[in-house]
Amino acid sequence: MALLERHDTPCGTGRIRRLHLNDPGKLNALSDEMLAALQAEFDALKHDTDTRAVIISGEGKAFCAGHDLKQMQAGRQAEDGGAAYFADLFDRCAKMMMTIRTLPQPVIAMPHGIATAAGCQLVASCDMAVAAEGTRFGVNGVNIGLFCSTPMVALTRNVPRKQAFEMLTTGEFIGSDKAMEIGLINRIASPEDLLFEAMNLAETVAAKLSTAVRIGKEAFYHQIELPLDEAYEYTGGVMVKNMLHVDTNEGIKAFIEKRPPSWHQD
Amino acid sequence: MALLERHDTPCGTGRIRRLHLNDPGKLNALSDEMLAALQAEFDALKHDTDTRAVIISGEGKAFCAGHDLKQMQAGRQAEDGGAAYFADLFDRCAKMMMTIRTLPQPVIAMPHGIATAAGCQLVASCDMAVAAEGTRFGVNGVNIGLFCSTPMVALTRNVPRKQAFEMLTTGEFIGSDKAMEIGLINRIASPEDLLFEAMNLAETVAAKLSTAVRIGKEAFYHQIELPLDEAYEYTGGVMVKNMLHVDTNEGIKAFIEKRPPSWHQD
Amino acid sequence: MALLERHDTPCGTGRIRRLHLNDPGKLNALSDEMLAALQAEFDALKHDTDTRAVIISGEGKAFCAGHDLKQMQAGRQAEDGGAAYFADLFDRCAKMMMTIRTLPQPVIAMPHGIATAAGCQLVASCDMAVAAEGTRFGVNGVNIGLFCSTPMVALTRNVPRKQAFEMLTTGEFIGSDKAMEIGLINRIASPEDLLFEAMNLAETVAAKLSTAVRIGKEAFYHQIELPLDEAYEYTGGVMVKNMLHVDTNEGIKAFIEKRPPSWHQD
Repeated sequence: MALLERHDTPCGTGRIRRLHLNDPGKLNALSDEMLAALQAEFDALKHDTDTRAVIISGEGKAFCAGHDLKQMQAGRQAEDGGAAYFADLFDRCAKMMMTIRTLPQPVIAMPHGIATAAGCQLVASCDMAVAAEGTRFGVNGVNIGLFCSTPMVALTRNVPRKQAFEMLTTGEFIGSDKAMEIGLINRIASPEDLLFEAMNLAETVAAKLSTAVRIGKEAFYHQIELPLDEAYEYTGGVMVKNMLHVDTNEGIKAFIEKRPPSWHQD
Repeated sequence: MALLERHDTPCGTGRIRRLHLNDPGKLNALSDEMLAALQAEFDALKHDTDTRAVIISGEGKAFCAGHDLKQMQAGRQAEDGGAAYFADLFDRCAKMMMTIRTLPQPVIAMPHGIATAAGCQLVASCDMAVAAEGTRFGVNGVNIGLFCSTPMVALTRNVPRKQAFEMLTTGEFIGSDKAMEIGLINRIASPEDLLFEAMNLAETVAAKLSTAVRIGKEAFYHQIELPLDEAYEYTGGVMVKNMLHVDTNEGIKAFIEKRPPSWHQD
Repeated sequence: MALLERHDTPCGTGRIRRLHLNDPGKLNALSDEMLAALQAEFDALKHDTDTRAVIISGEGKAFCAGHDLKQMQAGRQAEDGGAAYFADLFDRCAKMMMTIRTLPQPVIAMPHGIATAAGCQLVASCDMAVAAEGTRFGVNGVNIGLFCSTPMVALTRNVPRKQAFEMLTTGEFIGSDKAMEIGLINRIASPEDLLFEAMNLAETVAAKLSTAVRIGKEAFYHQIELPLDEAYEYTGGVMVKNMLHVDTNEGIKAFIEKRPPSWHQD
């Protein structure tokens, strides 16, 4: 049984890939092994033109409880007290989180139960999130003396400051309703409907012209960090490139002619 | 009948100008002609000290449905397949959107029916927005293979990331309640009260000392892109300049003396 | 009776310090004297390892009504019409607001009644805020011809743009419910429970390992202004430093062993 399961569902001429964290005994902790498995999957997705959308889900009672604390503690045995191991660990973890943004496919987190610390960071790092009703989200490393500084990077780019600060310093959980209010997730589903609703969202985006989605996702994260005038200059170029794509020509023609598009790519 | 109507309403010693998109047959698309008309109006407003607030509204069943797709498709006939025309088009469109921020007057979008693609961008680009109940907002170019990359620039500076990403990649509409929740609009009015409520908001800001509003609006968009310390250094200077204005002196004196101010300018 | 009262409450081996604005006759205005008193208290807190959390509250019917307008007007008597005094005043005020972020302790605003102009800025500048039901928040300098340009710096880093713009240009108050919705405050309490609820939040954060909170708060405001990759590079180093702290080792061990931690520092 793999640590990270792959479930593919056909969708149009392509597929939706679900990556299922499968280490329920460790609450799907982001151990060295799990980080490596996720990174390998993401690296494979970079040039995978058949996969149109990705879902990340978890086995057992929690979506993901963050880092593997026992493994981290074992790292302290090294001569340097773990300094080099920890630096490498957080580096690998940040790389994995940032790789999500560089993928051509939209990535949807599907949390349930508990999403805490780096598990909450994983939700925040995905492009979208569909959560089970009653999921509890926390960045509660502070409770054990380890402030969630890296999860904070993703969290503060999703939710307002005062709400992020409260979560980080109180270590308290918020529920799915609050997570929705502050912008951490997109949709809430009952536990029974969770996979259905996440697949539904994945199918919606997978049905779009994948070139347009790829172009747009890349532009999304690039322009968001630019000053306004530079963002417009950059995205103006992106729009031209998009317009000149043969399938976009067909898409617009079909719309004007009130017929479904006939795309090469889909 | 002009493509872009101008409706002036006296307000104090000045006026409120409503620019009314009047191309209902094209759902008020931002055609080359409409873009030019808006740019011309905005250019005229830059030094218009009588106009204290601006409202942008639309004729017919939609506020604005974005670019004029037929006109864009015609651009493909050029030798370069439209590349130069498209580059120029998105440049002109971005310029028009950015000009809104440089105007001395607050600009209020008054959407109803549908505000989609560049029409949604127009709402996001205005300083404030009062929407009719039931207005549907979308950045749904992705449905025809053209990701709304330029509208995204304005949208992501108004609403949280995950919500923006969902709108952009699903192409789905959101209603006025959701638009209010995520920060895209300021107020909702029934269709019958829409103009009244937008005028009401315009009158409120128009009644302020226009020098203060002008100084403040300019500072608003400048400081928002600066690091905190630079933002304070810059706005400190803005406050001093504002304090030294003769009408501000009178405004503060009047407040202390519990009487209405007697401003030169208003 | 001091202009700024200090109320200390023991908490664990440390204390919670409440700084109580005590100039009710001036609605706790941020006069030269009040700014100096706050700055002195904050400077003392920088190296105060016993204080684990700070609350800022106000005496009388308003939390804080902003600058002391009469004192500002008196400044106009100088030869330069007040230019140097105003520049210095806004500089001191901005410094005080920014010092809040540099403190090792979380700082909680506890507004009631009215928090307006620089008083609203004070709420926005604190790390968190617990407000009395019915508190009215405004940045209404525009009503007297003085746009709240410096309060805007803090406000626009707390709430969405269109909502901030509306508050700044209409000068209208928002209530505590709206303030909660847009992210300006964290919690609402009935006036009778306000102190209890603010103390409750302070006690929660004060009970954490103070080294972790200090490390985390510093990182919070630093990373929030960085591009994503730099933010991760920086916080990765912060996490390593945090991991190597002796009390963090104990905190994690205790968690794994399902026992309460025995921290040196707490």
